[in-house]
Amino acid sequence: MEVVKRLKALLKEISVINSSVSLMHWDQRTYMPSKGAETRAEALGYLSALSFRKLISPEMGELLETLSSKNDSTSLSDLEAALVRVVKHDYEKAKAIPPELYQKFVITSSKSQTAWEKAKKENDFASFSPYLEEILKLLREMVEFYGYEEDPYDALLDNYEPGMTTSKLEHIVSELKPKLISLIENLSAHAPIDDSFLKGKFSKHAQKKLSMEALKCIGYDFNAGRLDETIHPFTITIGTGDVRVTTEYKLSEFIASLYGTIHEGGHALYEQGISPELKWTLLDSGASMGIHESQSRMMENIIGRSYEFLSFFYPKIQRAFPKTLKDVPLESFYRAVNKVKPSYVRIEADEVTYNLHIMLRFELEKALINRELEVKDLPDAWNAKMNEYFGIVPPSDSLGVLQDVHWAGGMIGYFPSYMLGNLYAVQFFNSALQEIPELKKEIAAGKLSTLREWLKEKIHKHGRIYKPEELCKRATGEELSPRYFIDYVEDKFRRIYGL
Amino acid sequence: MEVVKRLKALLKEISVINSSVSLMHWDQRTYMPSKGAETRAEALGYLSALSFRKLISPEMGELLETLSSKNDSTSLSDLEAALVRVVKHDYEKAKAIPPELYQKFVITSSKSQTAWEKAKKENDFASFSPYLEEILKLLREMVEFYGYEEDPYDALLDNYEPGMTTSKLEHIVSELKPKLISLIENLSAHAPIDDSFLKGKFSKHAQKKLSMEALKCIGYDFNAGRLDETIHPFTITIGTGDVRVTTEYKLSEFIASLYGTIHEGGHALYEQGISPELKWTLLDSGASMGIHESQSRMMENIIGRSYEFLSFFYPKIQRAFPKTLKDVPLESFYRAVNKVKPSYVRIEADEVTYNLHIMLRFELEKALINRELEVKDLPDAWNAKMNEYFGIVPPSDSLGVLQDVHWAGGMIGYFPSYMLGNLYAVQFFNSALQEIPELKKEIAAGKLSTLREWLKEKIHKHGRIYKPEELCKRATGEELSPRYFIDYVEDKFRRIYGL
Repeated sequence: MEVVKRLKALLKEISVINSSVSLMHWDQRTYMPSKGAETRAEALGYLSALSFRKLISPEMGELLETLSSKNDSTSLSDLEAALVRVVKHDYEKAKAIPPELYQKFVITSSKSQTAWEKAKKENDFASFSPYLEEILKLLREMVEFYGYEEDPYDALLDNYEPGMTTSKLEHIVSELKPKLISLIENLSAHAPIDDSFLKGKFSKHAQKKLSMEALKCIGYDFNAGRLDETIHPFTITIGTGDVRVTTEYKLSEFIASLYGTIHEGGHALYEQGISPELKWTLLDSGASMGIHESQSRMMENIIGRSYEFLSFFYPKIQRAFPKTLKDVPLESFYRAVNKVKPSYVRIEADEVTYNLHIMLRFELEKALINRELEVKDLPDAWNAKMNEYFGIVPPSDSLGVLQDVHWAGGMIGYFPSYMLGNLYAVQFFNSALQEIPELKKEIAAGKLSTLREWLKEKIHKHGRIYKPEELCKRATGEELSPRYFIDYVEDKFRRIYGL
Repeated sequence: MEVVKRLKALLKEISVINSSVSLMHWDQRTYMPSKGAETRAEALGYLSALSFRKLISPEMGELLETLSSKNDSTSLSDLEAALVRVVKHDYEKAKAIPPELYQKFVITSSKSQTAWEKAKKENDFASFSPYLEEILKLLREMVEFYGYEEDPYDALLDNYEPGMTTSKLEHIVSELKPKLISLIENLSAHAPIDDSFLKGKFSKHAQKKLSMEALKCIGYDFNAGRLDETIHPFTITIGTGDVRVTTEYKLSEFIASLYGTIHEGGHALYEQGISPELKWTLLDSGASMGIHESQSRMMENIIGRSYEFLSFFYPKIQRAFPKTLKDVPLESFYRAVNKVKPSYVRIEADEVTYNLHIMLRFELEKALINRELEVKDLPDAWNAKMNEYFGIVPPSDSLGVLQDVHWAGGMIGYFPSYMLGNLYAVQFFNSALQEIPELKKEIAAGKLSTLREWLKEKIHKHGRIYKPEELCKRATGEELSPRYFIDYVEDKFRRIYGL
């Protein structure tokens, strides 16, 4: 069909430009010399706009219109029909916002991030609040253009988690929150776990070697990617056959870097597992932020912090840092990397407390968008919730409401993806456990290929063909439910703490 | 002026796309994982074509037409007038060739390079000759489209050295060739120089450190570039403030890598010195291949292999490789890196023999284009000239007519740039010597900033504003003359050989 061919050609154009943008981003954060920054920003701006203009071009509109009309759509293959469906959603989302409004939002977000950096450094929320107010104002306008059924916040959620709604999230939160708070209380009553041996001096060379071993162990293909250093680690796909991971090495501790690398490796396995059929189609990426996060969190936590995986991998860690770890038994190490402790900062949180950090943000950003909370009252509201969920109050806004870049960057509606990722991860892993009876034994033997093939078949290869909800049903037979996560953390951490 | 603005906007678009293409090329030859190759080739093909289409677009034609008409051109600034002049030349060159012919040429060159690689490996000229014949046929067609005044070969020369002609080149060759042949005969009559200590074991770490020291010494700005490893070293500009150098380290010898790095550093200084005013205009690169080569050869040979520079830099080399060099005096090292010896392979040639390798190629490719030589007779013609100029005949075509990629890649007319580079280099350096009386002393003290500023002022900052001929006149007060080069090599090498 001629029209399908034309659509594919246009999608390839957009994808190629996006590929060049990705390479520029990767280079900017790894190897670019400092004096190239200004030129790079201009090039990125131009190419991103070019790609965006092609996505919302009249040609794209006409092709999608033709292909989604009844007469034509019946002759489409399943893949082609998915192509039209997904790209049409992208197109409509992108077209919904008037260009001037979108432009204003991009500029404001950029300025706001700069203001946030300064405010965080100087612990000065007041200096940042006008920017956040402006971002909220613009987002409230955008929400009306996007449209929504029940809650304005739904429209923002949909940007990161297609199909997710506020009410579904609230349902999950209401089930999960009390269980977590009660579990944390129980664990806190016990003697704290000793993890003092995780601090010390750890050479970059040994850390790098260990990170590469970990990536190889989970099945990351180094012929289709690489590992480099950066400040804020990320995974990026340059194109089919080229999915790159980055990490940061700190000399005084290695856990953050090692588990950070495994986390990024989980993202990378997803992208490396996408079907080559989807190359250059815009469908060759993750189904949603939440599904993506499920893959990284599964590798980092469910696998990486499991007793089975460590019984295979901990000897390698000991060999990397013999001075510090040769006399630390596996059991102690396992407990140390699974220590539960309420903390101020989300990115340092353990598996049990992490989701509460997300709920707090979800509740606050929803209230902000709906004008149920004013920006000036945000720090107090933050601290009150910290006290309610964890029994601690951050000593400064820098360690509290100012800790994350997301709101400054206009990414409201993003945080829930992290929680959803944790929940999807356990639910997917449970299905895998049922279908692969020897899975835990395999993990203890350092064999992750059966699991990886299962993930590829059920999740990775489909790219963006299915919405998260459908993908979850196809992979696990049911809708997302927090029950699996609750059982998982209760079982795992009660055991570790000997309850 | 509205039209100038529109032209500049279009040039910026083309430049930004070219910048992304450059980054992709750099990445392809340094860090790209192997499985990303296919996707990268597609992306490069698409973006290169996009840039080319914008250059030959009707919009570009109209803008240039308007701006070069008499009424409008009078109101242009000098810079704007140069912009119109240079871009018009690019536009006309690009438009001259019918797209189908150009497409055919690109495909043939690509296939031909693959055939050449195999032929070189298997020492099988016959298997490569049909490809070379096809390339010559296409180039002869293209030459007619480009147009020329005297010699068809002029049209090809102009692609690499705007304004250069066959007759000017022949004039240079006729003056230079007999002098070089006679000098080589004289030097060959003397006892050969001992350079045995240049072979050994040289760690990559020490070589890398030394290469970085050398680049710093000549004034390469590492905040506006970087040094990476590759197989076939090159310098590439990603954009203003980002000019990258690459090198290859061999463990059995370090001279090729060290001088290769300095050579690339000379190219990089040129690009780093271009005026920021020329950013995104297509004028922000070198005036020609020959002028570019003059900057690399000056740093590599006139500076890098000078007694003055080595009296400063050799102690650093000794410190890098103390085992091999601690007992080798400066004088011996200086003589070793300036050893003159007829050789089969151009890229291994010394300063005296190098230009004869070029003359040989120039004479043969000119004869091929003009049908004065048939491809089947090329190997014999090659060997006859080798015998005539050097008194040696290569033992195989792989070490003879098949050694270079240029003809296989369709780059006929390129070789003379290397010779012109050598001649320009000496002529520029002589002018600098006259205007900076303390220059040799400065070089001996490792101070290259005065020379670099002089080069920046006279050559670098102008980018492509002036044609090579005019640039040479402005920098040295006269046209290019081989006299300076002849005096330079006669003086330098008679001294070294004690004649």
